[in-house]
Amino acid sequence: MSETKSIMDYETVALDEEKGALVIIDQTKLPYSTEILELTKQEDIWNAIYLLQVRGAPAIGVAAAIGVYLAAKEIQADTFDEFYPAFQKAKEYLDSARPTAVNLSWALNRMDSVCRANQEKPIGELKKILHDAAVEIRNEDVWVCKSIGEYGLSLVKPGDGLLTHCNAGKLATVKYGTATAAMYLGQERGYNFRIYADETRPLLQGARLTAFELYESGLDVTLICDNMSATVMRNKWVDAVFVGCDRVAANGDTANKIGTSVVATVAKRYNIPVYICAPTSTIDLNTPTGADIQIEQRPAEEVTEMWYKERMAPVGVKVFNPCFDVTDNDLIAGIITEYGIARAPYTESLKEIFLKKEASKDEKKIAD
Amino acid sequence: MSETKSIMDYETVALDEEKGALVIIDQTKLPYSTEILELTKQEDIWNAIYLLQVRGAPAIGVAAAIGVYLAAKEIQADTFDEFYPAFQKAKEYLDSARPTAVNLSWALNRMDSVCRANQEKPIGELKKILHDAAVEIRNEDVWVCKSIGEYGLSLVKPGDGLLTHCNAGKLATVKYGTATAAMYLGQERGYNFRIYADETRPLLQGARLTAFELYESGLDVTLICDNMSATVMRNKWVDAVFVGCDRVAANGDTANKIGTSVVATVAKRYNIPVYICAPTSTIDLNTPTGADIQIEQRPAEEVTEMWYKERMAPVGVKVFNPCFDVTDNDLIAGIITEYGIARAPYTESLKEIFLKKEASKDEKKIAD
Repeated sequence: MSETKSIMDYETVALDEEKGALVIIDQTKLPYSTEILELTKQEDIWNAIYLLQVRGAPAIGVAAAIGVYLAAKEIQADTFDEFYPAFQKAKEYLDSARPTAVNLSWALNRMDSVCRANQEKPIGELKKILHDAAVEIRNEDVWVCKSIGEYGLSLVKPGDGLLTHCNAGKLATVKYGTATAAMYLGQERGYNFRIYADETRPLLQGARLTAFELYESGLDVTLICDNMSATVMRNKWVDAVFVGCDRVAANGDTANKIGTSVVATVAKRYNIPVYICAPTSTIDLNTPTGADIQIEQRPAEEVTEMWYKERMAPVGVKVFNPCFDVTDNDLIAGIITEYGIARAPYTESLKEIFLKKEASKDEKKIAD
Repeated sequence: MSETKSIMDYETVALDEEKGALVIIDQTKLPYSTEILELTKQEDIWNAIYLLQVRGAPAIGVAAAIGVYLAAKEIQADTFDEFYPAFQKAKEYLDSARPTAVNLSWALNRMDSVCRANQEKPIGELKKILHDAAVEIRNEDVWVCKSIGEYGLSLVKPGDGLLTHCNAGKLATVKYGTATAAMYLGQERGYNFRIYADETRPLLQGARLTAFELYESGLDVTLICDNMSATVMRNKWVDAVFVGCDRVAANGDTANKIGTSVVATVAKRYNIPVYICAPTSTIDLNTPTGADIQIEQRPAEEVTEMWYKERMAPVGVKVFNPCFDVTDNDLIAGIITEYGIARAPYTESLKEIFLKKEASKDEKKIAD
């Protein structure tokens, strides 16, 4: 717990080896205060995921991997048959924190595979292997974001104005973020970007998280309401749009936070390129087009009340509150992955990205 | 004061002849409660304008006209020389409530002209003439809105989906509103519109006022965040967009509440017509284009805090908060005035609207 250090001195999710703790930034306290939590008990780790103290798909996956390793470390067992049921129990417990979070299950299943693949090893060595597997998941996240940042940086120049929507930032990953990766890398290299952050109604992730993390990092960020994008673009203040994504279809249609397609439509009018920052884990070649993506509806109270306290709309009025929208591929200038930039036609270029990924599987993908 | 009647049983601004009172809906209490104020004292009328208990340019103008008539009625004088200084004082007092509100000065100056033009009349008769002048300003507002509604209704069909942004509704005028006029007239005629109201950040006039007045009136209204417009349009739920305006330039470029040009850009992509509802009083042929319209900037706290209480963004972050934006004329399918619908090229069609207005000056423009 520290009030004096900046949030940027911390990674969003980390393993403290000495203390045997999962260390996270409590995102439920942002932007009011920066509280760093050191979690050692499984109940506290479960709660952190459940209560959204850690959020963002990549960050949740890393937290779960570290969490299940910390559980494994404490298991008292001499044989795998004694060890594995306890490991399984810990894994299932963490998995229950957010049943629909894909990265949570993905990370825990990967840890489980590593566990089963090494069942012949002595328990001490197995624990070391699980430690390394959790660290690898963490390192991969850093590498993916950094790689996306490098490709993103190749598309802009010093002094450019960049607009982003929602939070696909550092706070959703271990560090760098996806949509923000080029911004942070550019900062390290003196690019002096001017950044515009959409506040992103209804839950204001842009105001609460993106504006916060960029501002805390010393970047030049200006907060705007979502309906001001046309004005900043008309003023020629924006040279490129960088956004994250929840799912990219095989044809490049992209589901992301509600409002992304509005930004992309407006950007098209002003000839500003829109780049989707998409780890290959978010690209789903089995989803042919955006029309095949189901859009989650969220509670009306997110729109009619602020923090479920202050009512802003008449009681009883109908509300339409989709969580995501689909940005058509013709509005997208490029899809930036950790294996390169896909350009239209995406049906071909995204397949090529996956061929590159396959080809690189033997290479080490660790960076910091 | 009544909690049982609906807001729609009242006009936004009215004269109660019996009580000698200006009757308004207290808009600072909406949407939480419907309070009807009966104001007889000049101090209370001044406060109502100053505190935005009555708001919206046309409604302010009518309130001021009724207010200065009520002041005149009480003046004890036998001659015009005795009467006029007291009238002038009352006029200047009300005019000071909101110095930049154009309609306030316009209405008061018109009452002043009527007063001076009838200075030979006995004081009793002069008071009656001022009464009629105030009623005429009220009736003209109703006629302008109703006429805009009739022209608007000619552009849509029963069952259509209509989207609006901000509040150019009944609550900004005596009744009907401008952008909402076709909706209310359509309701009277069984059109069964499905209406989408943008919440309109940062001050949420769409959520607090438009969704409120349409819902209270029994119209089928759905509240959305501003960044959801592309989704409802993509779903083919919207057949036309109706919005008000703050100023229309000679070439048709239109300044209106921030976000209007975003809606218009998105509507263009989905081939949905955007109609500007513009009383001729808002059309300024002396402003050549939108580039000549100055855009007011508002305080950052409107974006970073909710009702100046609940902070939603980091302290210190830069904010860009323009009050209006300019919608280019190529995004506008028509400009609906009380004298007809102007179509591109607007430089010609808007001039024709004013020729029609001149030609009709002798005709009586009263309706209810």
